[in-house]
Amino acid sequence: MATILRVDMNGLSVRREEADARYRELGGRGLTSALVAHEVPPHCHPLSAANKLVLAPGLLTGTGAPCSGRLSAGAKSPLTHTIKEANSGGMAAIDLAACGLQAIVVEGRPAAGKCYRLRVTPGDAVLEPADDLAGLGNYDTVARQVDRFGQKVSCISIGPAGEMRAGAASIAVTDVELRPTRHCGRGGLGAVMGSKGLKVIVVDPAGGRRPRPADMAGFRQGAQKFNAALLGHPLTGEGLPKFGTNSLANVINAVGGYPTRNFSAGQFEGVEPISGERQHDVIVERGGEIAHACHRGCTIRCSRTYVDEQGEFVTKGPEYETIWAHGGNCGIDDLDAIARMDRMDDDLGLDTIETGATIAVAMEAGILPFGDAQGALGLLEEVRRGTPLGRLIASGAEVLGKTYGIERVPTVKGQALPAYDPRAIQGMGVTYATSTMGADHTAGYAVTANVLSVGGKVDPLRSEGQIELSRNLQIATAAIDATGLCLFVAFAVLDDPAALEGICEMLGGYFGRRITAEDFLALGKRTLGVERGFNKAVGYTAAHDRLPDFFRTEKLAPHNSTFAVPDEELDQVFAGID
Amino acid sequence: MATILRVDMNGLSVRREEADARYRELGGRGLTSALVAHEVPPHCHPLSAANKLVLAPGLLTGTGAPCSGRLSAGAKSPLTHTIKEANSGGMAAIDLAACGLQAIVVEGRPAAGKCYRLRVTPGDAVLEPADDLAGLGNYDTVARQVDRFGQKVSCISIGPAGEMRAGAASIAVTDVELRPTRHCGRGGLGAVMGSKGLKVIVVDPAGGRRPRPADMAGFRQGAQKFNAALLGHPLTGEGLPKFGTNSLANVINAVGGYPTRNFSAGQFEGVEPISGERQHDVIVERGGEIAHACHRGCTIRCSRTYVDEQGEFVTKGPEYETIWAHGGNCGIDDLDAIARMDRMDDDLGLDTIETGATIAVAMEAGILPFGDAQGALGLLEEVRRGTPLGRLIASGAEVLGKTYGIERVPTVKGQALPAYDPRAIQGMGVTYATSTMGADHTAGYAVTANVLSVGGKVDPLRSEGQIELSRNLQIATAAIDATGLCLFVAFAVLDDPAALEGICEMLGGYFGRRITAEDFLALGKRTLGVERGFNKAVGYTAAHDRLPDFFRTEKLAPHNSTFAVPDEELDQVFAGID
Repeated sequence: MATILRVDMNGLSVRREEADARYRELGGRGLTSALVAHEVPPHCHPLSAANKLVLAPGLLTGTGAPCSGRLSAGAKSPLTHTIKEANSGGMAAIDLAACGLQAIVVEGRPAAGKCYRLRVTPGDAVLEPADDLAGLGNYDTVARQVDRFGQKVSCISIGPAGEMRAGAASIAVTDVELRPTRHCGRGGLGAVMGSKGLKVIVVDPAGGRRPRPADMAGFRQGAQKFNAALLGHPLTGEGLPKFGTNSLANVINAVGGYPTRNFSAGQFEGVEPISGERQHDVIVERGGEIAHACHRGCTIRCSRTYVDEQGEFVTKGPEYETIWAHGGNCGIDDLDAIARMDRMDDDLGLDTIETGATIAVAMEAGILPFGDAQGALGLLEEVRRGTPLGRLIASGAEVLGKTYGIERVPTVKGQALPAYDPRAIQGMGVTYATSTMGADHTAGYAVTANVLSVGGKVDPLRSEGQIELSRNLQIATAAIDATGLCLFVAFAVLDDPAALEGICEMLGGYFGRRITAEDFLALGKRTLGVERGFNKAVGYTAAHDRLPDFFRTEKLAPHNSTFAVPDEELDQVFAGID
Repeated sequence: MATILRVDMNGLSVRREEADARYRELGGRGLTSALVAHEVPPHCHPLSAANKLVLAPGLLTGTGAPCSGRLSAGAKSPLTHTIKEANSGGMAAIDLAACGLQAIVVEGRPAAGKCYRLRVTPGDAVLEPADDLAGLGNYDTVARQVDRFGQKVSCISIGPAGEMRAGAASIAVTDVELRPTRHCGRGGLGAVMGSKGLKVIVVDPAGGRRPRPADMAGFRQGAQKFNAALLGHPLTGEGLPKFGTNSLANVINAVGGYPTRNFSAGQFEGVEPISGERQHDVIVERGGEIAHACHRGCTIRCSRTYVDEQGEFVTKGPEYETIWAHGGNCGIDDLDAIARMDRMDDDLGLDTIETGATIAVAMEAGILPFGDAQGALGLLEEVRRGTPLGRLIASGAEVLGKTYGIERVPTVKGQALPAYDPRAIQGMGVTYATSTMGADHTAGYAVTANVLSVGGKVDPLRSEGQIELSRNLQIATAAIDATGLCLFVAFAVLDDPAALEGICEMLGGYFGRRITAEDFLALGKRTLGVERGFNKAVGYTAAHDRLPDFFRTEKLAPHNSTFAVPDEELDQVFAGID
């Protein structure tokens, strides 16, 4: 498990190497960020040969730990120019672990216009020309690999957006049913993969062995304790399986934090038709699936399969943030149209949050009216055709906003804000402003204490307590992101001490020595410190840890609130970590 | 002369106020940068109501000092997000001085889609609705003002690019013949004017009085000394009048510093047909004008009028940087096509350098082939039509490069490099990297000692001496830019001590007290310090004072050189100024 696969796209060669000692006890985001920080020159162009794409399963991935199938992707981001980690569910991380790989590092760059496939097995790895895949969507790309290599593989691929090296390009990961529905979405990592001419990685774990904890009894005890905590928590045990992530729509709308029409209001009059409850009913009526797991070993099963009126599969979920981005944020209340957009995003290889936010800015710019679902679908067709407008949509909200001279562009460090208005949920504003990743809800999900009464209560409309809340969440998240555990386990961790005990016992069992909660959080702090150091070398300062001014000057209905956390407090989030 | 005109585009009112004491001895860039630094929040969006557009004649403008007609425009730049000053020739600065104005400060923002004219006279200023001008090019805009207000006015206007709030949008200033041929080109200041709904400023100096030096005899003595130095220098007395700025084409090409096909080579095989010598012959043969002054009182007369084969006026010049940007940098050797592009840039209100650099990146992206003059003209037609591709062309090289996933984008702080490759003329690389304005040749024109043997000699291919050279030039330039003197006087200043004596005596005569060379340079240092302070508050650090990596990794033919000045030395340029 301490093996790194080096893929040299310049020399078109692959090499397995023993990981350096300092990397051996790292996984997931902890490992991708460490490798990027140590090996990528901070000033390099993100699309240049000097950037590196790192893919890493988490520390616990493949061990049988519940919900531990996350795959981290890391690089210098073409969207934010910060260090970037985006992680995804799906089966590839588990399969890579079974192939004995701690990470894949993709380096260099081949001749322009060339397209390659990397095939990974437990014993081998080969690079093959794959020019026949150029321009294909993720669905066709994966289908061709399955036709050729069988049903037991998993795929990591890019669509046309990644090939265009677009700022909103994602990296797709196949789910249990071999559909490219899971994505390392944020920060344009698909563009880095595209710049390296790597279209798809096919992982075939046949004959591999899953990672074996050093102390299996201790590990199993932790896993049981952890599993019980997940099943016992109302969100991970009941709410997420039944209604999925989009159960948040009504909740966030009720507190006035559902960004509507490019962050012009905090409540959307059309939320009901696109809510999680309605989505649940539509799926059940049409014969789709609720409580669907994106990888084996997931006990939360927050995903679902969305089908059309004939019962034909359209897409997974879609998730809350996706439905919001293409829905309320665009003034669109048509769930079927949103599902088709999600399908197109997945096929094109686009981050659904960035794409929806960009369409909303296009609406703000007058390119199409708010509420125009067919027009929004048309913009995604433009992406597929590679027109100038399509490339703009695929480049993210900030670039489109610049091109059309728009002031109201909701981005931090070049990345669009997700589905929680920071004027109504101030803790999320702290995370958006200060995260090492640009605006990112998963970096420190303050919705917990601000809205859900998970892990305590902090008034969402006041600044008091938000800094400490965001700091603690960012530390815990960075630690969880190193393990390969899905971030949703945090709900249980925040409310039930047994969950964190279980994680520490699983890690302790894996390493064969005692791991305390402090050890676990130290891993998070170390990762944040590494990421902050890289960003500082790029040129990021406290002046960049800010929301766009309009969140301080424009009042948000219904609370008529503005973002109220003072700059001086924002600058304290990483006190003691830098 | 210590009066500031405040134009409130929110309340649609104007107000004359006595300048604060700290502004009274400032002019031009010294004044625009001081006002922007004091009054504009560094974090504001450049297109928001919080930004301010400042227009200021120089300290000596209107006094009769030779070559003193520059108009400075300043704001936070939409292109670079730095503080920005861009200055222009033409008649408006002299006319504003005659109206008794030290500066115009345009503040706030009106309702979207509204278009206004500001009329300024010695006794009055009024804002008038001008929706009938919306969408017009600069030529038609000016023609309508002249029809209505007569031949004695001057105009400051924006074209469609400014109305689109595009990153490459310029502010046009009319010349002696009332043509909108002079531009505050760089940094997208036309977009700031556009964001404020201000289409045109018409200045009618009738009845005004030109500024009167306190010590007229001392002033006149300085002016005579200065004038003699200008006439006596081979460049300002002879080379520039005869061959214009484009006499540089053969010179820069000969030293291998003429960036060709998006900075892929340092010599252009097609330079002869677009050289200053050929341009001179074409103009003379066709009955155009050489040695043309862009404002009254200019003794250098580096401009010219370019006419077509029928002898009809096409455009001024074009200047060296314009011909290079649309010429060698795009692989185009057709002078008539380039002149038409210059005319279109002026009419659309586009910075010719940024626009040419953007077309070259479009060629690098494969949108059209290098050398395609008709295709390049077509891209400018796209700008006029406001298509997505046109808006991209008007947004500058960096945005277009991001949208098409291009690594080789020659920008610093978001602004395109001008017509001197930093690998062959290393001193220019130091200025590009460290200037407070993003890549800008006029910020510290090291071509002097690197190539022209003006102000000493520094080997252009070595790093030795470049830091000190660029530092001294940046200080002297900031001082000259405060006076309203054309930067071309620097050739004389660098070679003939009498020129600087003359400037100090003119300033001394103007203020009625002795001004030393140290006082003069202190003005430059103060301005740079103010600008650096603003940029630091925006978030700029030493990490941003860098060229794109490819200038260090790609060798430039014919010298096979890379940019060799170490980062640690770049960080010393402003030692003692910050």
